[in-house]
Amino acid sequence: MTATKVAILGVGKIARDQHIPAIAASDAFDLAATVSRSGGLEGVDNHPDIDALVLARPDIPAFSLCMPPQPRFEIAKKAILAGKHTMLEKPPGATVSEALTLADLARAQGVTLFATWHSRYAAGVAQAREWLADRTPTKVEIIWKEDVRRWHPGQDWIWEAGGMGVFDPGINALSIMTEILPDPLHVIAATLSFPENRATPIAADLTFAGPRGLQVSAGFDWRQEGPQTWDITVQTDNGTLRLSDGGATLHIDDAKQTLQDSGEYPGLYARFADLIAAGQSDVDLRPLQHVADAFMLGRRETVAAFHD
Amino acid sequence: MTATKVAILGVGKIARDQHIPAIAASDAFDLAATVSRSGGLEGVDNHPDIDALVLARPDIPAFSLCMPPQPRFEIAKKAILAGKHTMLEKPPGATVSEALTLADLARAQGVTLFATWHSRYAAGVAQAREWLADRTPTKVEIIWKEDVRRWHPGQDWIWEAGGMGVFDPGINALSIMTEILPDPLHVIAATLSFPENRATPIAADLTFAGPRGLQVSAGFDWRQEGPQTWDITVQTDNGTLRLSDGGATLHIDDAKQTLQDSGEYPGLYARFADLIAAGQSDVDLRPLQHVADAFMLGRRETVAAFHD
Repeated sequence: MTATKVAILGVGKIARDQHIPAIAASDAFDLAATVSRSGGLEGVDNHPDIDALVLARPDIPAFSLCMPPQPRFEIAKKAILAGKHTMLEKPPGATVSEALTLADLARAQGVTLFATWHSRYAAGVAQAREWLADRTPTKVEIIWKEDVRRWHPGQDWIWEAGGMGVFDPGINALSIMTEILPDPLHVIAATLSFPENRATPIAADLTFAGPRGLQVSAGFDWRQEGPQTWDITVQTDNGTLRLSDGGATLHIDDAKQTLQDSGEYPGLYARFADLIAAGQSDVDLRPLQHVADAFMLGRRETVAAFHD
Repeated sequence: MTATKVAILGVGKIARDQHIPAIAASDAFDLAATVSRSGGLEGVDNHPDIDALVLARPDIPAFSLCMPPQPRFEIAKKAILAGKHTMLEKPPGATVSEALTLADLARAQGVTLFATWHSRYAAGVAQAREWLADRTPTKVEIIWKEDVRRWHPGQDWIWEAGGMGVFDPGINALSIMTEILPDPLHVIAATLSFPENRATPIAADLTFAGPRGLQVSAGFDWRQEGPQTWDITVQTDNGTLRLSDGGATLHIDDAKQTLQDSGEYPGLYARFADLIAAGQSDVDLRPLQHVADAFMLGRRETVAAFHD
């Protein structure tokens, strides 16, 4: 198979830490160009913006967009209108409506749109989904508590309106939840804690309802010092499952499972290649929908100021 | 044509003011029963809850749900699972996700689900939509300013988390906007003003973006004393349209248009009858999606306390 040429748009921390190594390790893709205003990578063709890239490199059929969601919509629209298969970092938009617009546009243009959720490719998720497929969940508890100072040092955009605050990591948990639980869920109560000097929440507690009385509780907190917790526990009619370390570790009835870990971002690029080959898109907006619903429904409380 | 028997669930202000007179004037429906805990209507079979209604009256194929959105989901689910054609007052849910769940359920059950937006049946809306169909909008301004004390006296639920505050009337404007403008829009900025003693906003300013540089501004305010304003102005490449009085009055290039007004709720019930006859559903969630997006994206500000 010939590798597909791909361009990275937005060469920030996530591109350098994850996308570029995943493409380097992939047989399916070759990194052919970048778009970066602050300079790209040694030895890779760089362009100042998407317009310049589209003009100069008609030979590149696939674009991977790695910038934050706020500026991303207009760039994604240009990519799709230029006929490019397009991959979006999470979340797929600053709003659900804009992501729906992109999905419609991709359908009309006949290109692949892949709204990625990298946590779904954590080592334990596929096996958790399979184990749950023939069981009935009775109670689900999600705890996602981390230290924002450690993971987002100096990233002001996460604290600005539209930056989502603690939902930036929390949406990873919701992406796993919607992947492994087949039942439809909706938020029935939420409390969002806003630092008095910030526009986005530093903590959130959500309750979801599902069929047959199923309840899911989710606690997200960015004020966790010491050990970090990214756990999902699912009690069922036939055993209990625990995903921990953000999905990388799986216990079933307290027995640690042996997992094959090929990496989250390599998993995303393998999926992107499959979607392109099949002429399909993958735009699952449920995780973002739950966040928007929680903002609409939630009770707001003000907590102590946060200083970076 | 034989009239279809319909039951009203939730006999509050909106049922008495609008639904019951519209059904009384309709050839398509007969009011056959009500569900009300506080007593129903003189001469109409009343039941204490939906379970009692379903058991006692298998002859009634259509249910119209008139209670506020917070308790409505579980009742709507029971109605659909009982095989009833189901009509929902606006908004169709406390969350978008629950409305999507109901739509899926109705599809699986093969019944009609009608998520209503009564303002779309205001006298000028259909003609506005038709006039805009072959024009290109360049600028849209929505002003929806009313006195909450006049329209919602003592209604505490609108101020509680999930009650949506000023979006309760504002969503009517958004339902007209999404009906008359064919272009996809999404919120790009929002400011929500919360009274310091309330959980929902008393005012909101939204900016939407659309294709070809189209911008839509919407200002919702519940603090309007004196004259009330429910106006939508659409500038196009070929003239200007103004819907006022909540859609009841239409001006094109300052000339007042002659309209046929058959009433918003009679229009809803005529549509419900058509949907049942055609075996179709109508669940357009865009107005609610825009509200959820505005809550997720919006900047919050605190304003003076509101006392009823």
